[in-house]
Amino acid sequence: MKTYLNEIKENDQVESFFLVKDKSSGITKTGSAYLKLKLVDRSGEIEGRVWTSAETLAQSFGKDDFVRVTGKAVFFQEHLQLNITHIERMTEEGILFSDFFPTTEKDIEEMFQSLLEVSREIKNPHLSRLLQLFWEDESFVRLFRIAPASKWLHHNYLGGLLEHTLSLARLVLKNVSHYSGLNLDLLLTGSILHDFGKVDELSYHRSLDYSDEGRLLGHIILGIERVEDKIRQLPDFPKDLSMLLKHLLLSHHGQYNWGSPKRPMILEAVMLHFLDDMDAKITGIQQFIKKEVPEGSKWSAYHRMFEQSFYVPPLLEQIQVDESIEKNRSEEE
Amino acid sequence: MKTYLNEIKENDQVESFFLVKDKSSGITKTGSAYLKLKLVDRSGEIEGRVWTSAETLAQSFGKDDFVRVTGKAVFFQEHLQLNITHIERMTEEGILFSDFFPTTEKDIEEMFQSLLEVSREIKNPHLSRLLQLFWEDESFVRLFRIAPASKWLHHNYLGGLLEHTLSLARLVLKNVSHYSGLNLDLLLTGSILHDFGKVDELSYHRSLDYSDEGRLLGHIILGIERVEDKIRQLPDFPKDLSMLLKHLLLSHHGQYNWGSPKRPMILEAVMLHFLDDMDAKITGIQQFIKKEVPEGSKWSAYHRMFEQSFYVPPLLEQIQVDESIEKNRSEEE
Amino acid sequence: MKTYLNEIKENDQVESFFLVKDKSSGITKTGSAYLKLKLVDRSGEIEGRVWTSAETLAQSFGKDDFVRVTGKAVFFQEHLQLNITHIERMTEEGILFSDFFPTTEKDIEEMFQSLLEVSREIKNPHLSRLLQLFWEDESFVRLFRIAPASKWLHHNYLGGLLEHTLSLARLVLKNVSHYSGLNLDLLLTGSILHDFGKVDELSYHRSLDYSDEGRLLGHIILGIERVEDKIRQLPDFPKDLSMLLKHLLLSHHGQYNWGSPKRPMILEAVMLHFLDDMDAKITGIQQFIKKEVPEGSKWSAYHRMFEQSFYVPPLLEQIQVDESIEKNRSEEE
Amino acid sequence: MKTYLNEIKENDQVESFFLVKDKSSGITKTGSAYLKLKLVDRSGEIEGRVWTSAETLAQSFGKDDFVRVTGKAVFFQEHLQLNITHIERMTEEGILFSDFFPTTEKDIEEMFQSLLEVSREIKNPHLSRLLQLFWEDESFVRLFRIAPASKWLHHNYLGGLLEHTLSLARLVLKNVSHYSGLNLDLLLTGSILHDFGKVDELSYHRSLDYSDEGRLLGHIILGIERVEDKIRQLPDFPKDLSMLLKHLLLSHHGQYNWGSPKRPMILEAVMLHFLDDMDAKITGIQQFIKKEVPEGSKWSAYHRMFEQSFYVPPLLEQIQVDESIEKNRSEEE
Amino acid sequence: MKTYLNEIKENDQVESFFLVKDKSSGITKTGSAYLKLKLVDRSGEIEGRVWTSAETLAQSFGKDDFVRVTGKAVFFQEHLQLNITHIERMTEEGILFSDFFPTTEKDIEEMFQSLLEVSREIKNPHLSRLLQLFWEDESFVRLFRIAPASKWLHHNYLGGLLEHTLSLARLVLKNVSHYSGLNLDLLLTGSILHDFGKVDELSYHRSLDYSDEGRLLGHIILGIERVEDKIRQLPDFPKDLSMLLKHLLLSHHGQYNWGSPKRPMILEAVMLHFLDDMDAKITGIQQFIKKEVPEGSKWSAYHRMFEQSFYVPPLLEQIQVDESIEKNRSEEE
Amino acid sequence: MKTYLNEIKENDQVESFFLVKDKSSGITKTGSAYLKLKLVDRSGEIEGRVWTSAETLAQSFGKDDFVRVTGKAVFFQEHLQLNITHIERMTEEGILFSDFFPTTEKDIEEMFQSLLEVSREIKNPHLSRLLQLFWEDESFVRLFRIAPASKWLHHNYLGGLLEHTLSLARLVLKNVSHYSGLNLDLLLTGSILHDFGKVDELSYHRSLDYSDEGRLLGHIILGIERVEDKIRQLPDFPKDLSMLLKHLLLSHHGQYNWGSPKRPMILEAVMLHFLDDMDAKITGIQQFIKKEVPEGSKWSAYHRMFEQSFYVPPLLEQIQVDESIEKNRSEEE
Repeated sequence: MKTYLNEIKENDQVESFFLVKDKSSGITKTGSAYLKLKLVDRSGEIEGRVWTSAETLAQSFGKDDFVRVTGKAVFFQEHLQLNITHIERMTEEGILFSDFFPTTEKDIEEMFQSLLEVSREIKNPHLSRLLQLFWEDESFVRLFRIAPASKWLHHNYLGGLLEHTLSLARLVLKNVSHYSGLNLDLLLTGSILHDFGKVDELSYHRSLDYSDEGRLLGHIILGIERVEDKIRQLPDFPKDLSMLLKHLLLSHHGQYNWGSPKRPMILEAVMLHFLDDMDAKITGIQQFIKKEVPEGSKWSAYHRMFEQSFYVPPLLEQIQVDESIEKNRSEEE
Repeated sequence: MKTYLNEIKENDQVESFFLVKDKSSGITKTGSAYLKLKLVDRSGEIEGRVWTSAETLAQSFGKDDFVRVTGKAVFFQEHLQLNITHIERMTEEGILFSDFFPTTEKDIEEMFQSLLEVSREIKNPHLSRLLQLFWEDESFVRLFRIAPASKWLHHNYLGGLLEHTLSLARLVLKNVSHYSGLNLDLLLTGSILHDFGKVDELSYHRSLDYSDEGRLLGHIILGIERVEDKIRQLPDFPKDLSMLLKHLLLSHHGQYNWGSPKRPMILEAVMLHFLDDMDAKITGIQQFIKKEVPEGSKWSAYHRMFEQSFYVPPLLEQIQVDESIEKNRSEEE
Repeated sequence: MKTYLNEIKENDQVESFFLVKDKSSGITKTGSAYLKLKLVDRSGEIEGRVWTSAETLAQSFGKDDFVRVTGKAVFFQEHLQLNITHIERMTEEGILFSDFFPTTEKDIEEMFQSLLEVSREIKNPHLSRLLQLFWEDESFVRLFRIAPASKWLHHNYLGGLLEHTLSLARLVLKNVSHYSGLNLDLLLTGSILHDFGKVDELSYHRSLDYSDEGRLLGHIILGIERVEDKIRQLPDFPKDLSMLLKHLLLSHHGQYNWGSPKRPMILEAVMLHFLDDMDAKITGIQQFIKKEVPEGSKWSAYHRMFEQSFYVPPLLEQIQVDESIEKNRSEEE
Repeated sequence: MKTYLNEIKENDQVESFFLVKDKSSGITKTGSAYLKLKLVDRSGEIEGRVWTSAETLAQSFGKDDFVRVTGKAVFFQEHLQLNITHIERMTEEGILFSDFFPTTEKDIEEMFQSLLEVSREIKNPHLSRLLQLFWEDESFVRLFRIAPASKWLHHNYLGGLLEHTLSLARLVLKNVSHYSGLNLDLLLTGSILHDFGKVDELSYHRSLDYSDEGRLLGHIILGIERVEDKIRQLPDFPKDLSMLLKHLLLSHHGQYNWGSPKRPMILEAVMLHFLDDMDAKITGIQQFIKKEVPEGSKWSAYHRMFEQSFYVPPLLEQIQVDESIEKNRSEEE
Repeated sequence: MKTYLNEIKENDQVESFFLVKDKSSGITKTGSAYLKLKLVDRSGEIEGRVWTSAETLAQSFGKDDFVRVTGKAVFFQEHLQLNITHIERMTEEGILFSDFFPTTEKDIEEMFQSLLEVSREIKNPHLSRLLQLFWEDESFVRLFRIAPASKWLHHNYLGGLLEHTLSLARLVLKNVSHYSGLNLDLLLTGSILHDFGKVDELSYHRSLDYSDEGRLLGHIILGIERVEDKIRQLPDFPKDLSMLLKHLLLSHHGQYNWGSPKRPMILEAVMLHFLDDMDAKITGIQQFIKKEVPEGSKWSAYHRMFEQSFYVPPLLEQIQVDESIEKNRSEEE
Repeated sequence: MKTYLNEIKENDQVESFFLVKDKSSGITKTGSAYLKLKLVDRSGEIEGRVWTSAETLAQSFGKDDFVRVTGKAVFFQEHLQLNITHIERMTEEGILFSDFFPTTEKDIEEMFQSLLEVSREIKNPHLSRLLQLFWEDESFVRLFRIAPASKWLHHNYLGGLLEHTLSLARLVLKNVSHYSGLNLDLLLTGSILHDFGKVDELSYHRSLDYSDEGRLLGHIILGIERVEDKIRQLPDFPKDLSMLLKHLLLSHHGQYNWGSPKRPMILEAVMLHFLDDMDAKITGIQQFIKKEVPEGSKWSAYHRMFEQSFYVPPLLEQIQVDESIEKNRSEEE
């Protein structure tokens, strides 16, 4: 069983597995080589030192490898450090990703099944077959199930993309019939596909970051390429339908400044943009509030991207109680 | 029964009622006085002339009055003109406002009852009583039922404010439970109240325009004043609840540039802003498309406020049919 | 031989061919049908009327057809009008496009050969083969040779895209070696491909406008699709090279606000953006100055996109002469 | 008499009173409880430790209380620390606020009397009575006299709001007659009322910060509510006058981006905005220069809100002397 | 004595002088040459025709000349036209500029003397001598006395620059002592010099427009050049003082976007910017209101540069009266 | 010969010369005075201490002096420190500036001769003589040869201005003939003069910073003053030519926001702006990449002014090799 880094105390004998984030070598004052490591898991990070057989052990693993480690926790310069007696590389198979990276609190399999179910609402045969092709693409599905939805703003954890996609598709189902004239099939397909490019834009197998093609091309273009790739396998897919679908993907950020090269020009694109933006904002603020509201405060820290703080009001029921107490008190005075 | 201006043809004998938009007097070459009028109803406008007894008749009515008119339609300088033999002022009682101004296509009474029903979803006794006060305020309700929601952008017709308010409240009901932690009572009350200030911001009894206080103070402030006015009648209304409600009103435009002096800082305000913006945009675009897509075109005219055109795609079913026809044709060639 | 519309005078007997821009029918006072046409060619437009056999003739051609016309020019309500006695549809084969649309003043074939020559400078076999695929694609080449480069700003005439592309490629050749470390092959290929999407973004066979996919997707995306399409035929094409090339296309507008979803992140993309922008601006201003500097003025009209006027200074040689004359004159006074 | 924190030296025996900014408890290595305090006054802050009777003493006071303290100053880890032998809560009555918070250098009573005098210039009976109501509202006056005018930018100290208000009213008196047609009474009243909402927007009894309603509603709305509250007590107050006055308050920031939901639309509002902005900027820069010009420098530090530095030129008289010296010197060389 | 164009009626025999704005020649149906003129003065413009001796008379004058004209006013195509029997060029000497161009309503000589008087407040000998050089420069003074202050926004009439300069200098005198530490001499000199470049930026001898150097360099640079030109004649003028003075000129627009290449960095520059901006805005709005408030309206037309309308409230005294009338009326109902 | 600071190791006996960046005095625990210095050269900085004869030695030099130093390097608090036994001021004559400040890697004399050569391309006698005056102005040339081109963005080292100027002039020569109608003489002169004001805007004799006049007036205005100063010595210099040249200088930043008070209005100014911007950006990015791409990374650090990172792709040749290796590998798996 895994021991988490934030559970380790001075003098603990540790035997667990971690991810190697940094690896370098040094020379002790006595002239012998040693290894300096930074080990991480979901709960934090720790410095590691290999004092014995450093050179031999160093060959068996590298940066970004998962390793099995035996060692003892000691205090050095005000920090815990792991003096490692044995270390060896592990294959990914023995690994639970969620031990190492922040992960959605929801059940991935359950969410995925729900999304498949939502897909079945689509009646248009072309759109339906298009989605089917994605669901049958195992390598895509493997990525899609664990990809995060962003690095910073919202759903920035494993499974976040799936969580956001399912949430958006459900919002579409709730809102599309509110207005006449919006095409459910087109909008629902668009909502499911809209961020598919994020499986390529982000890299999330060792640390959450952007990939080279993510930075140079962006998830909008990468998503269109994935869609185009499937459409080529559907020779009867109507050209105009393909154009509308791509327009939904292209324009879903709503504005040039937010990276959309086109603004929404059809009603479905307008609604997709609003619901996507609302889902990202509300979920992003909820995550932020969870972590960044100091205890005893009703105000969050300052959110640098939104350039503001957020307020967490007391429950309405509480408001009434509080005020009547306060009132009594002020009447007493 | 009313004859509409766009039904009148040359030589028709007309007897109907109109609104006087302009009124001035002139002197004929022979030195006698005549009246120049511009008469309007919902369907258009027409020049009117009173050649006989002009001075006497002129005293009985003024600009912005409703008048009953008898006369004959003639052609003059390429336009129809009404030579009026009799004209007299009418009281508003005999008038159907919808004969004179663009009016919602929905049933006002029905929408109003639906909104009352929605109000009953609110469990919080303070918020519920606050809304009750508004519904009991007959002079407010009379205004609220016919007020438009804006001059230009969306719901710019009689009953538009009610229509937009009901639509927004329903959107709130659909979306609020999608996220945990949002307070239904607060959000629903906020959605119902959010544009109440528009009954004062706009003037819509003779022509749709902004009132002086509308221009100088705006509907956000005017709405807060109306709300404050009612809250004063509820001595137990919690101060913090009042603060939150006003924050929803203040911030519902979402950004400084769109006239909100505060940006949304609580989740309810964030959602209210998105749904309000979405409802205004989608409805505004739908209205625009109805009027401003030239026949035979899939593109609307250029929308000056949104700085773009909109595209009206063919039905998806049609897309497939069209393309297969086109394909056959191109294969034949 | 073609008679141009701006050469026709009152009472001329006209026999020539034009493009039908508008076509509708009317009823004369005597109750017989007639045809109202708007005919255009490169030099202007004229109203046409078919008074005899209108119904029969109407069936033989439609809006946007080229037609051969026989008729007589008469004055009606201060404008020339063509009373047409015979009219019939023409096939495109007999047509010189440059008779109907503004066309580059340069020789299209010559420019195209020059561009082929420039292509041969590319040594990288992948990039070279990629371009080769485009040049061998006859339907693409046919479009590319006559496409305009934009509707408004610059090179907005048939052949304009080719002219701009050749100009940009030559600028690249002149500037690339000015700095060390820029890759000529990548930059040159990027400059040739950068606007290929415009063959699809614009429609220019009857009137210069944007196509549906041009408006909904834009030439950046359309261009990437064309490039992707060819790369798929080159199984060995390196993935990283494809990524860099697409980045050049994506980022060549330089800023989000100008429609690029990514800003230039490699040096080649930075230079491509500057040279493309410079070529578009300078050529656009030169075109504008040619048409929009009133005689006798050194200042152009106000350019609405650039929000300024431009100044056309006298030749430097002239400046000296003018000033010495002026000086002598003022000394005389 | 108060001892200021910045006067205390190592080994001083201290007996004075301070404000408790932080309070927490710890356990010594020997297992006994102690108190950790952060004590502040106007001049700085100091760590405090209570080693004896910590638990008992802890009950007698809390965070944000004023306390009377007896103790000895010692050096610990490069900082002075107060070892406290006795500590007890004080009531506010014995406190001079200016001992604890930065305070205006001017005399508050004198400024307030001057403002009353300025108020008497107002001849319009409604406006005059309105102001009178404020001056008679003791709880308001108590707040108004000590409120700061902002947290960061200008007049950010106790009494700052009064100082800024008086300054602005005097600027109005100096400038209003410069143009014909501006109404002195309206403008003067507006200038006095314009920031009244700041008594509620800021909280300044323990530390200078924004209140909840300050953040959620802002001083513009809070000010309008205070004004509205008084106007309700004046049944004859003309509605149009109330509208104009509120417009002045609403628009005094001049632009949407600066938090005004309306821009100035009457001349009085235009002047109020300019003079208010000028007073805030000039006073803000003067404060900044006082603190943020390094010795020997003519340039201030970088001002983050204004995004620039400021230059403090030598006196003009000095310029001449300096330069003639420099000249002589350079001539000698 | 001058007859103004807006006084002329049909059949009047006219003998007066005008400015020739356009001049061209035509051929009558009978084959003889005639002259087409557009004549203007301050009050309007009129078409003129010379039917007799057109060729001879044409040689004696040109476009932009002042001419003495004899002729008769006739109606032609719904407009008055002047059939001219005699026309000859006039020298400027006989001309009152204010007959031809909009001119300040104030007395130019009186304003100029006031400005001289204000200049005498400056004690610093360098600044005082610098201004003196300008006042002694006759060709400058001649231009300065009649130059307008802008083409569009404010003081856009002959004498406007002087009027604005005097107004600004007086505002400086009123406000400078409001704050400690601002240098009166520097600020007053800066205010007088700040727009001197406008004598060169605008051309205002025939029609109000920008000169070539005005458009290409702007009044800020042109003003600095005029100041630099005078400073060169003052060898002892301190270099630092020159730098500060130029900084005031450079930065007086306050922001890059308003054409200042530097923002104000000294307090004097900050105040100069605010007072200049306030004077331009208030005066500009006052001018606009005078011309652009439709009769019977309290709202001005839409001001395109300010992107808003302005409100002209009734006098406060009137407000009370109006409201009590209204009240009585509504009570009666 | 100079010893560089980054070559010094513990216990080295040092005898070399440095620049004194900071100088202050302290008192040792035993009560004697000592000197604390910060010494710098091109390679870094070091703390210096003078323990003996501190007061005497202190008098012989000051901050910003070059000094010859004898001392020994010791470790103190984890940093090297120089215990100085002798220190004395040096004159600048013995100094190689490039030992102390970052300096262009190119040969200054060679670049300057190249620029003179480029100047000779100018045929217009006025422009040619104007440049000649600058080249003959020894004090200007001395500054111009070593001035940097900016503090932050590009060419921010001694000789950088010359390097940028030569680069820009060569770009002009390469591009000017690409379009017809651009005047080579004007454009080339403009490119050489365009940043001359930087010799005054920056101060670069002891540390690279902005001068007072640089901050208050900026290099655009300072450059125009230097040009104006020379033109005054050329009485025949055409006024219009001077105007055009100044327009080029004024507008070369291209936009108000980038500090140009006028935007380019002639074609030569448009091209100058683009080429100047391109040269600054490309060179700035190249410098940034050299320093700020972490080893092993293809991505630079975040560039705060450009608000992005830059990508350094592998060589194209390398791309192919890499990918075929990767391919083989994936095929093997």
